[in-house]
Amino acid sequence: MSQDPILIIISTNRINSLSAAVGEYYAELLSDNNQPNQTLSLTSLPSDFTATALYENQGKNAAFNQLKQVVEQATKYVFIVPEYNGAFPGILKTFIDGLDFPGTFRHKKCALVGVSQGPGGGLMGLSHLTDILHYLKMHVLPEKVYLRNITDSRLDTVLANTKYQQWLQSQAEGLIAY
Amino acid sequence: MSQDPILIIISTNRINSLSAAVGEYYAELLSDNNQPNQTLSLTSLPSDFTATALYENQGKNAAFNQLKQVVEQATKYVFIVPEYNGAFPGILKTFIDGLDFPGTFRHKKCALVGVSQGPGGGLMGLSHLTDILHYLKMHVLPEKVYLRNITDSRLDTVLANTKYQQWLQSQAEGLIAY
Amino acid sequence: MSQDPILIIISTNRINSLSAAVGEYYAELLSDNNQPNQTLSLTSLPSDFTATALYENQGKNAAFNQLKQVVEQATKYVFIVPEYNGAFPGILKTFIDGLDFPGTFRHKKCALVGVSQGPGGGLMGLSHLTDILHYLKMHVLPEKVYLRNITDSRLDTVLANTKYQQWLQSQAEGLIAY
Amino acid sequence: MSQDPILIIISTNRINSLSAAVGEYYAELLSDNNQPNQTLSLTSLPSDFTATALYENQGKNAAFNQLKQVVEQATKYVFIVPEYNGAFPGILKTFIDGLDFPGTFRHKKCALVGVSQGPGGGLMGLSHLTDILHYLKMHVLPEKVYLRNITDSRLDTVLANTKYQQWLQSQAEGLIAY
Repeated sequence: MSQDPILIIISTNRINSLSAAVGEYYAELLSDNNQPNQTLSLTSLPSDFTATALYENQGKNAAFNQLKQVVEQATKYVFIVPEYNGAFPGILKTFIDGLDFPGTFRHKKCALVGVSQGPGGGLMGLSHLTDILHYLKMHVLPEKVYLRNITDSRLDTVLANTKYQQWLQSQAEGLIAY
Repeated sequence: MSQDPILIIISTNRINSLSAAVGEYYAELLSDNNQPNQTLSLTSLPSDFTATALYENQGKNAAFNQLKQVVEQATKYVFIVPEYNGAFPGILKTFIDGLDFPGTFRHKKCALVGVSQGPGGGLMGLSHLTDILHYLKMHVLPEKVYLRNITDSRLDTVLANTKYQQWLQSQAEGLIAY
Repeated sequence: MSQDPILIIISTNRINSLSAAVGEYYAELLSDNNQPNQTLSLTSLPSDFTATALYENQGKNAAFNQLKQVVEQATKYVFIVPEYNGAFPGILKTFIDGLDFPGTFRHKKCALVGVSQGPGGGLMGLSHLTDILHYLKMHVLPEKVYLRNITDSRLDTVLANTKYQQWLQSQAEGLIAY
Repeated sequence: MSQDPILIIISTNRINSLSAAVGEYYAELLSDNNQPNQTLSLTSLPSDFTATALYENQGKNAAFNQLKQVVEQATKYVFIVPEYNGAFPGILKTFIDGLDFPGTFRHKKCALVGVSQGPGGGLMGLSHLTDILHYLKMHVLPEKVYLRNITDSRLDTVLANTKYQQWLQSQAEGLIAY
């Protein structure tokens, strides 16, 4: 079992997102399995990071650097990824574009969870994200979770579907053992 | 021939990017073909737009709204897309995530140009972008241009490759006639 | 309105497939819109074509050549694409691998319909297929139809969902006007 | 170190393919690293398998079943994948469409090697293949090898590029330790 905490990344900066609630549930799942964990939400991104932390400004924004360090220190990740415009949120890739290459994710491991109002469950976004994470040489757990047709923003309603509970549990166990 | 100006979108907010230079060249190409055109660079994005123009804040940032309006009024587009981390810049999708759905791009038309230091020419990024633009119901010209192995940031060096000049010219003609 | 018949390609060689039934329905739709049309099913492929019609044997299998000619003569296509193993049927790409490049599909136009037992509606397969058809320089109508959760093999049951009828009708009109 | 032999799958049925030569080289690499290995080429597919081994005929073709059994017994794989029509060969997916789901590849591990005449190195094909293998719940080594611009069919010429030799060696070690 992994001793390092697993880092759960809420992959949107939308406030009060369902993804954040899914992330909280995932954190409990990991804790229930005696797996230390930590959560980083993209709502913590400095409001001007696109102008002060990317490209020629890489490393210059102290608040961004703190988040960057949290990501760098982790070795396993869970990305909770809502579907916006048929794919993952742009803010997630913008965040990744501010991280160091190739050190940040190289040879590390992650699991992916998609969340969508529509029936796809974030399938396309997780496929795109896999392309990118593989480019960064990160291991991506093949068991991806797709939470579909999520029209109610209350997590309770979502998880009333016990199939989803089992799916998340199975993935969490897979990630812990990965 | 299209009377509306074609909007060239420089799909990064990196300053002095090669993509901006490619965009200038594309603008000349269109002008030489008597095609009105206009350029919007993501360097114009307000520095705090990720916190003030997305999701629950959509429509509330006046500077963002100006860019939004420019995009909405156009009917044809060229996206000049550098490759960052094996895919298109996150900032491009973050920008799209702040635009109105489904009205902005629905039934409109575009051409895609990839720019990469590596040998891929932005292939993966343009594939992901096509998935998203098709989701938004935009027509994507099948002739995509891939500018590969661009290690010199001077456009002159890039375009010394006459194959690239011809490729861009052919695509521009295709877009005008689209 | 297009005078050339639209070619409907049943993209599997499975006999009595639901895709074939969807294709028949699509043919009626086109006819009802006064659009001539024709259907080619991959069930017509010669049983040994993978050994006698590809690569160094291209052009040598008379039965394959007949199908090849039907595809070459058309200018607009509808691909009815079931989902096998999370993507489109391998037989479809194998068929394409036996066609002439780049003449067969270059600058032609098509619409895509996905059919799946699961909730994806063939989303991933149509994305992969779009990558390939764009590589071949074919125009792909952005309005793709996804027939999802098709657990009943009777077309009547599928089309009892009037949303699907409208979606197919809307796409068919789009393709005719394309 | 894995005791089970690694199965190298030559992912085309084209005879005398460069992929077959790359596969031979990969076999030597594995052997030099004391890793037992075995090779299966899709040239061994029965000529009529698309009509006699798929869907309702699954399990009925004895020659196909032999290949199927070889795949089922392995636990690690290398796919050598040429680029045809901008993606992987259709025959590879057609072969996969004849294998048992979900038992064949579930929780197993693989590495991917792309081979292309063009500059992409099979990037798109390996991305599509990753989507499919992840759907089948197989672990895909993030380090993928792209052999690009292969215009000479002699392997010696290809491997005169020592970068390619190192890349293959690095991947092979990664797969052995996976």
